[in-house]
Amino acid sequence: MEITDIDGVFCNGIKEGKYGLGLVKVKGSIAGIFTQNKIRAAPVVVCEENIREGVVEGIIVNSGNANAYTGEQGLKDAKEMCRIAANLLGCDERRVAVASTGVIGRKLNMDWIRRKAPEVYSSLGNSPENAHRFGEAIITTDRFVKKAHSEKARIAAIAKGAGMIAPNMATMLCFAFTSAKFDSGELYEMLKNAVDSTFNRLTVDGDTSTNDTVLLVSTGKERVERDVFEQELHSVFYSIAKQIARDGEGATKVFEVHVEGGKSNDDANLIARAVASSLLVKTAIFGCDPNWGRIIAAAGYSGADVDERITLSFSDGKEEVFLVDAGRPLGTEEQARKLMQNSDDLVIKIKLEKGAGKGFAIGCDLTYDYVKLNAEYTT
Amino acid sequence: MEITDIDGVFCNGIKEGKYGLGLVKVKGSIAGIFTQNKIRAAPVVVCEENIREGVVEGIIVNSGNANAYTGEQGLKDAKEMCRIAANLLGCDERRVAVASTGVIGRKLNMDWIRRKAPEVYSSLGNSPENAHRFGEAIITTDRFVKKAHSEKARIAAIAKGAGMIAPNMATMLCFAFTSAKFDSGELYEMLKNAVDSTFNRLTVDGDTSTNDTVLLVSTGKERVERDVFEQELHSVFYSIAKQIARDGEGATKVFEVHVEGGKSNDDANLIARAVASSLLVKTAIFGCDPNWGRIIAAAGYSGADVDERITLSFSDGKEEVFLVDAGRPLGTEEQARKLMQNSDDLVIKIKLEKGAGKGFAIGCDLTYDYVKLNAEYTT
Repeated sequence: MEITDIDGVFCNGIKEGKYGLGLVKVKGSIAGIFTQNKIRAAPVVVCEENIREGVVEGIIVNSGNANAYTGEQGLKDAKEMCRIAANLLGCDERRVAVASTGVIGRKLNMDWIRRKAPEVYSSLGNSPENAHRFGEAIITTDRFVKKAHSEKARIAAIAKGAGMIAPNMATMLCFAFTSAKFDSGELYEMLKNAVDSTFNRLTVDGDTSTNDTVLLVSTGKERVERDVFEQELHSVFYSIAKQIARDGEGATKVFEVHVEGGKSNDDANLIARAVASSLLVKTAIFGCDPNWGRIIAAAGYSGADVDERITLSFSDGKEEVFLVDAGRPLGTEEQARKLMQNSDDLVIKIKLEKGAGKGFAIGCDLTYDYVKLNAEYTT
Repeated sequence: MEITDIDGVFCNGIKEGKYGLGLVKVKGSIAGIFTQNKIRAAPVVVCEENIREGVVEGIIVNSGNANAYTGEQGLKDAKEMCRIAANLLGCDERRVAVASTGVIGRKLNMDWIRRKAPEVYSSLGNSPENAHRFGEAIITTDRFVKKAHSEKARIAAIAKGAGMIAPNMATMLCFAFTSAKFDSGELYEMLKNAVDSTFNRLTVDGDTSTNDTVLLVSTGKERVERDVFEQELHSVFYSIAKQIARDGEGATKVFEVHVEGGKSNDDANLIARAVASSLLVKTAIFGCDPNWGRIIAAAGYSGADVDERITLSFSDGKEEVFLVDAGRPLGTEEQARKLMQNSDDLVIKIKLEKGAGKGFAIGCDLTYDYVKLNAEYTT
């Protein structure tokens, strides 16, 4: 199921070298969640303003240039992007959502966008090829386009994101559409909860981008129970978050950290994040090295209340190897190493004896290719 | 000037493969600062207890095994290390400081330590070779031993530390000696200030170890003015902090981040740390890529009060290339790239227009070798 399988979603995109332009025609109610970085890209500022009334008629996205830290000109350019889309779609420019991703601090090549937008518009449609071209248009260092859907709740989402993925949102653009009927206030509440429990648990390198944008648009009249919708939206975003972790720049393995027995949920989440973000843990996972001491050390500096009574296991979803039992190392490193070598989707379980707090984070390993990709990105 | 040039300091060390043992005979007043990780290695617990009265007669250190997360046995082993040193030196075991560095979660090979300690003791002395052997004994993944001294204040220090260096202390062991006369209370105050402004500004990978230990011992009767001593102690630690950054696992370049115009010093330090810790900044510096957008983005997510009125320059100590002037990109990337290519010691200056706050951090680049070293450390 593609985004174009949602009633009323038409899209297209074009990619030329590092630069891409995507366009969506979609009438509906909308909600958005944006980066918490204090330096907010121009499209974030303009998009948030434009969707304030909860109504949307189009979305325009470019990749290769983030239009971030571009001052007044950047705001003008982001508004012009909306105007270009509005002229093509025949709507008010303040009903267009806009997003950008790419290098920070460079002025948009508006000539290119002006020239390409009519071309993109001319082949707008709702075929799978349209969805494919839109996806290709919005990615940057991504190795693949991220997609997920729920038949049950009639949700389909498409996303980009690979580096600069941190808790408090990923450098990601995610566009989710549904034909289930909700107003923008309901969409916002459900979107916020779903983002908190998925994208905000994701850490690739700890950096938080200037451009993060997640939009949820409702186009139709279908009735879906709210609790069903919430659960399905969570599943769709969870799937995309895992895909982003898997595509973490240079990543070869994705892992989840599950913490229980924390003094509070906040404490448990602090630990999960510290472990998922630790470079020493991430490199050890890359090396299939069950160096659980680094996990314990990360728990120790997480800021959470921690003592040595920790139980720790690695699992691949089928088998679980316990490495530490209530503070006692079990000497099972060789079994854990084999499990790590044979799986690229691991779960680290950490159990404290502090309380009933639970926490969760998603991470990926740190590899030579992360360094390579990021040492050479703008050059 | 070596630590053995300080009156009353005798030492020796031995290294066998990954394992090392060092011993210092030194009578004097002592102060120490230890890791803030909540999981504290056994030697940290025992050392802090033993130096509580501010008097020391010996120091014993092992490398290759951190004796961390080793429960009751670890505490027993750390105490036995002190007893072994005390028996050899002929003093009370509670006057022995102890430190360990290496892999977490493995029991010490006490047999090896018991066997080697008399051998180390038998060649104790105050020659440069003794200092050299002590230095070699305490290093792990370090490419070189860190040393610095002040003739003026009669201070000499020796240290190890390469990975897991974070603000709030490095995974480092640093042993500083002086023949200037101060009591342990004075030593503690001066040590704390010096550590706060040097080692606590250092970030290699954001991880904080379980074993960090900085000791300062006064052995003599020389009179040095307190303000002179403080300044010189700062210089000695600053030099060691830079050496640790330079030896950051796999690092090829070291850099400082200087922030001014922050709303407060705390805010300016938050920004300096966020920039020095950002993987995207660190990989860009490795690639000699003046990708200042990543610096701006890190400032934006640092938690400090930040807006787009930022002035940003790169300097190699001689030449300074401004990249951004009060929010306006200057298009000088090619000059900055050349400067980066020709220097392995860079300064990033960031000026805000928020107030008079100043901040500072020391970092190093992130390279293929960091990943390699840490993916393969325990194997």
